[in-house]
Amino acid sequence: MAIDFTPEPRIADLRDRTAAFVRDTVLPAELAMLRGPGSPDDTLRRKLQRAAREAGVFAPTVPTGHGGLGLDVRGQSVILEEAGYSLLGPLALNCAAPDEGNMHLLEKVATDAQRERFLRPLALGEIRSCFAMTEPAPGAGSDPSQLLTTARRTDGGWVIDGRKWFITGADGAAFAIVMARTGGPDGAPEATMFLVPSDTPGFRLVRHVPTLDAGFTGGHCEIDLSGCTVGDDAVLGEAGKGFSYAQVRLAPARLTHCMRWLGLARRAHDIALDHASGRTAFGSRLGDLGMVQQLIADNEIDIAASRALIREAAWALDTGRSGKHETSVTKTFVAEAVGRVVDRAIQICGALGVSDDLPLAAYLREVRAFRIYDGPSEVHRWSIARRALRNRCTG
Amino acid sequence: MAIDFTPEPRIADLRDRTAAFVRDTVLPAELAMLRGPGSPDDTLRRKLQRAAREAGVFAPTVPTGHGGLGLDVRGQSVILEEAGYSLLGPLALNCAAPDEGNMHLLEKVATDAQRERFLRPLALGEIRSCFAMTEPAPGAGSDPSQLLTTARRTDGGWVIDGRKWFITGADGAAFAIVMARTGGPDGAPEATMFLVPSDTPGFRLVRHVPTLDAGFTGGHCEIDLSGCTVGDDAVLGEAGKGFSYAQVRLAPARLTHCMRWLGLARRAHDIALDHASGRTAFGSRLGDLGMVQQLIADNEIDIAASRALIREAAWALDTGRSGKHETSVTKTFVAEAVGRVVDRAIQICGALGVSDDLPLAAYLREVRAFRIYDGPSEVHRWSIARRALRNRCTG
Amino acid sequence: MAIDFTPEPRIADLRDRTAAFVRDTVLPAELAMLRGPGSPDDTLRRKLQRAAREAGVFAPTVPTGHGGLGLDVRGQSVILEEAGYSLLGPLALNCAAPDEGNMHLLEKVATDAQRERFLRPLALGEIRSCFAMTEPAPGAGSDPSQLLTTARRTDGGWVIDGRKWFITGADGAAFAIVMARTGGPDGAPEATMFLVPSDTPGFRLVRHVPTLDAGFTGGHCEIDLSGCTVGDDAVLGEAGKGFSYAQVRLAPARLTHCMRWLGLARRAHDIALDHASGRTAFGSRLGDLGMVQQLIADNEIDIAASRALIREAAWALDTGRSGKHETSVTKTFVAEAVGRVVDRAIQICGALGVSDDLPLAAYLREVRAFRIYDGPSEVHRWSIARRALRNRCTG
Amino acid sequence: MAIDFTPEPRIADLRDRTAAFVRDTVLPAELAMLRGPGSPDDTLRRKLQRAAREAGVFAPTVPTGHGGLGLDVRGQSVILEEAGYSLLGPLALNCAAPDEGNMHLLEKVATDAQRERFLRPLALGEIRSCFAMTEPAPGAGSDPSQLLTTARRTDGGWVIDGRKWFITGADGAAFAIVMARTGGPDGAPEATMFLVPSDTPGFRLVRHVPTLDAGFTGGHCEIDLSGCTVGDDAVLGEAGKGFSYAQVRLAPARLTHCMRWLGLARRAHDIALDHASGRTAFGSRLGDLGMVQQLIADNEIDIAASRALIREAAWALDTGRSGKHETSVTKTFVAEAVGRVVDRAIQICGALGVSDDLPLAAYLREVRAFRIYDGPSEVHRWSIARRALRNRCTG
Repeated sequence: MAIDFTPEPRIADLRDRTAAFVRDTVLPAELAMLRGPGSPDDTLRRKLQRAAREAGVFAPTVPTGHGGLGLDVRGQSVILEEAGYSLLGPLALNCAAPDEGNMHLLEKVATDAQRERFLRPLALGEIRSCFAMTEPAPGAGSDPSQLLTTARRTDGGWVIDGRKWFITGADGAAFAIVMARTGGPDGAPEATMFLVPSDTPGFRLVRHVPTLDAGFTGGHCEIDLSGCTVGDDAVLGEAGKGFSYAQVRLAPARLTHCMRWLGLARRAHDIALDHASGRTAFGSRLGDLGMVQQLIADNEIDIAASRALIREAAWALDTGRSGKHETSVTKTFVAEAVGRVVDRAIQICGALGVSDDLPLAAYLREVRAFRIYDGPSEVHRWSIARRALRNRCTG
Repeated sequence: MAIDFTPEPRIADLRDRTAAFVRDTVLPAELAMLRGPGSPDDTLRRKLQRAAREAGVFAPTVPTGHGGLGLDVRGQSVILEEAGYSLLGPLALNCAAPDEGNMHLLEKVATDAQRERFLRPLALGEIRSCFAMTEPAPGAGSDPSQLLTTARRTDGGWVIDGRKWFITGADGAAFAIVMARTGGPDGAPEATMFLVPSDTPGFRLVRHVPTLDAGFTGGHCEIDLSGCTVGDDAVLGEAGKGFSYAQVRLAPARLTHCMRWLGLARRAHDIALDHASGRTAFGSRLGDLGMVQQLIADNEIDIAASRALIREAAWALDTGRSGKHETSVTKTFVAEAVGRVVDRAIQICGALGVSDDLPLAAYLREVRAFRIYDGPSEVHRWSIARRALRNRCTG
Repeated sequence: MAIDFTPEPRIADLRDRTAAFVRDTVLPAELAMLRGPGSPDDTLRRKLQRAAREAGVFAPTVPTGHGGLGLDVRGQSVILEEAGYSLLGPLALNCAAPDEGNMHLLEKVATDAQRERFLRPLALGEIRSCFAMTEPAPGAGSDPSQLLTTARRTDGGWVIDGRKWFITGADGAAFAIVMARTGGPDGAPEATMFLVPSDTPGFRLVRHVPTLDAGFTGGHCEIDLSGCTVGDDAVLGEAGKGFSYAQVRLAPARLTHCMRWLGLARRAHDIALDHASGRTAFGSRLGDLGMVQQLIADNEIDIAASRALIREAAWALDTGRSGKHETSVTKTFVAEAVGRVVDRAIQICGALGVSDDLPLAAYLREVRAFRIYDGPSEVHRWSIARRALRNRCTG
Repeated sequence: MAIDFTPEPRIADLRDRTAAFVRDTVLPAELAMLRGPGSPDDTLRRKLQRAAREAGVFAPTVPTGHGGLGLDVRGQSVILEEAGYSLLGPLALNCAAPDEGNMHLLEKVATDAQRERFLRPLALGEIRSCFAMTEPAPGAGSDPSQLLTTARRTDGGWVIDGRKWFITGADGAAFAIVMARTGGPDGAPEATMFLVPSDTPGFRLVRHVPTLDAGFTGGHCEIDLSGCTVGDDAVLGEAGKGFSYAQVRLAPARLTHCMRWLGLARRAHDIALDHASGRTAFGSRLGDLGMVQQLIADNEIDIAASRALIREAAWALDTGRSGKHETSVTKTFVAEAVGRVVDRAIQICGALGVSDDLPLAAYLREVRAFRIYDGPSEVHRWSIARRALRNRCTG
């Protein structure tokens, strides 16, 4: 009833076991991956997920009915931070983007049959999925209303045409949730989401978009949809509700991003602390130099503020609020804070920090895009400001 | 048991009544003060405190045994933010610095007799007090170990000599808590706190130190102690424990500062929102211009992060932890965030913002020192970094 | 012909003499003013200007034909920085705002008769002036096109009606340059500037707008113009050219602001250096602590970058370019840099920095508005961005 | 004689020709490299350098006596910015690090024979070189006094032992300038520089240190020196002068870094301007949105301030001053500004910005290390602050 930050005993226990699993099993795999291929493939994913299942830490965000741990958002905030302590932790626990957000969306809006067909194997880690919304210019980027992909009604189904861009995880995904423009009854713009298996004729992976980051299995891809025909049962939930479903997915999805990246920021900070404890310059331990202490302290502050904001937004979602404002505020702050933390960690480690003898340079490459995806900071600030002005006027 | 941000119903009710009291009674008094004398005197204080008592919102931090509302720190975090929505709110509720921190300290370490003599009238608002620790250079500033004021043992008492500087609220205070160096048994440096009525011979108010801010009743003063003789009963708690008592006072005191200033930041933000809603430039409402929206959004983010950090530190204190780290992190962030919020509010309001037609310029003057008192940001960052390094090495 | 930063020998000599004059004559007067009335009155101004004339440093920006030193903008950049080392230096040298900008404008666009009547006594320091453009909402603020004050043609003259706000130096000014809307031949919006002696019937000083700063003689005032009737000879230059004349005044005026405030930033920095050299904390000289060194270094960097930008913009103006872009870039950077420098200086000096035992708190109050007047940073950034986009498209 | 920013006609002409060469010849090669191998090899280098020679823009920093264009530092500041507009421009013009700094050092301190043997082919682009100073922990990093590599006097020569780390360009370099500790006559720590051909027995390339950046031919390498024996003629200049020679190299070398990276920042900014001009979101051209305009304006400001500081430091070096302070201030500012500009450019371009469809992500990877090499920002700030304090005390 009163303000409380104590995790439930069950969560505290799961946190400790997740931390141990990440430390003992995932970090060695991350090291090997960074020294080797650079990206996690499905073989690595399956191996890690098997280990996670054995360790009893698998699928924290998945409802128990589908074989997961069924945590509420506050519980997720504790566990996903621990998972995020390694680039591969969320993948191992099957709570990485985009599958994690897709599972949430399916849970909320899919039909029973769709849940059985798509959510069940996803929750078990048997398959992967992708979320195909963004398009190359002048299509939908930050502004979903610019959606150009169309789905045309045919006899007993739909024909989808368009091009999607920067579709994370698409290569190897068993299906895509495709957002397409569908005509409303009165001509008003509407969008519908479709569940499209990736072997559907007309659905074609064009290429990997090469990017700064490399941590997502299946990359960021360009997809062509040409006369891609699906049945009525491919409509996710109800036709015409695409824009509102996008909201259902986005608010929690951006918050789980924050949780995971916060874990990585913590790890970058720990690496820098280790370096500052051991390395000497100008007759001092690095960690005894004032400017290095300032970098360390600012990291502590950014991490603490990020966590506090995440917890508060998680609570808002758990108590039934839309959480749009809270998750926007939190996402904007955390995306920038995580970037600062990794950057400071590199600065503390000097030349070592930009070398691949430490994983920090890889982390820098991973986190940069976080200020852009799930809404660039500028779009969130725009929403935040408009909401603040509106609330002030009415409230 | 689970993470929860819901205030108890009693706190929620008190919050709403405090907000109403501040809006209806305190803000008009603030306006009059800012247009008139600029500083609150004891007449104004008594009048406001009487009104607060009638409104049932008086003394939220004071234990019920001394006539207060007896809130825990989390409860305080809710109420003191509301109080801080006006410069005069904390004074009206008798939870302003330095009395609030002094009452906390007396409650924790004073003898029964001292509580009766000093805490009781303080809690009732009958008198004011001050905390006399800092000294002019080369004495104790940010570094308490530089303490130069001495207390020498005499027959049945102590003689205090020294000079104190920047002693907030000293003019008009009924007594001071004076920190002085006392010899330890083995010559180790020790400090003792003394309860010194301001009419004690040898205790002399030298001058008001003129400062940028003007919001504290009794100003910031220089005090001379020359042969100031007090009895053994003037020793607060036990002799030799001055440094550890300082810690007892500091962690919660810096957090209540954060709560109060957060309230003022919110008010500055609201003033800017009102301006941005009404004023037009370049064919747009100010609030529709992107750069103004960025200022607004950054204020929202700073306020949300400040509040989240305060709540978490309050919980740490309530659950019996020292809270040193949490309150250092929070104080550093909030002091800087509050400064940014007020500065952005001014920028949004333009020339009006630097004029006294709005209270923002006055707020700017008040909040600047917050990054300095109760430990400058640099000293906190130093502590935070050392603690982070230590925990990483041992933990 | 080649890039060169060496001031001409004449300028170097004048710089040294100005520095000596400021140090020996102006700084003591500043100290007395800050400890006393807080603002410079005309008695103090006359006394200081007499001393400057005797020291041969008077009127550096005034053409030699009007008794000044006739420096080009680059020469001004050297001398006005030295003058700005004291709040009162520009006043002493008769190169303070708004007179300095007004003299420049009169020199450029006034008729011979107007120059004789208004510029001559202004250049000699016999009178002061003000520039009456900005208006209370919803009139002209950052956006001059919102001008509401009107001038209506009558037989042989004009009748001006409107209200002006935040008119610096108005109290005691012998005349105002009043910007008013006048109908163009085809109804297009036009503005005209008028030279209005302050004893003209219908011209009325309403009040001083109380503000955060206090350093301008004559304050920031509200002015009422009601049926204020002037002759045709009151039209500055030509009727209808008000908006373009405003540009003639603004680009150089914002640059001389930068020069003067840079001098004050340097002084704040020097005060902080002196404090950091002498004060001890935690067993170190303040100046040996890393975080203090960071503040000091950032001040050095901000000062160096400000000076380099000012010099380059000065050269642009001297070589006949409009300098709109260069002065916008420079003003935006310098206004923010000066604020940061003064703020850091205060932080280095701690409680002393917010006390009036040092002049830093007074400087903070003076410089805050610099990010707002002569175009808020946001308006300059808007112009800068649009120009950058335009140049990229066409260039 | 007066402050002037006009480049000499010869420089202006060379600037225009360099710009054209970069645009027409180098940018296409950069595009091919980024889409292909990612790093420039010697084949590409030779091809580009041949083209630069034909275009008459080759070797701008090399004295005319060695076949270069013999520009002074101010001239270099104009031309190297143009060269830096492509990652490959400096390589094409033979003014890339580390060769450019090595040539400068050889020109200043080498014997005639050494110049003939090492400088001549370097200046012609026939060979490459490296500068082997930094070592793995606990050896010399930011603090050169931690130098662990030793050179022991033998009969008619020296034996060098030690390990070097992060030696840029080492793979494929014809020789290294190796910094080693040599005993002073009285045991005082001394260092000596040696010219060591890379085929000298005992000189061994251990590995490429994999790093965030990829733009330097020859990578960043680890080198082992074990019983590496060289003759007396391998001593660069005089024995025992290694530390002072390092200074001879560092001040100009860090400034030419600034020039080159400023060019790249300008290119990143131009790419973002093109994107902001063409892309639409929320019903506006991106470039018409206020927050995007803020990013653009801040880029303009950072670029202008960087250039102004570079020019001033260049002038200091050309007029015979050590330039230590000026180049430290400039390097610190420019390294951070360049990082900000590239980061903002990415933010403006959104997902496209982190994809390799634009070169911005590659630029981000290249410029991050600039805040670390040639002295991390923290070390420069430390030097700047100490110098400021010293000058204030003595001056």
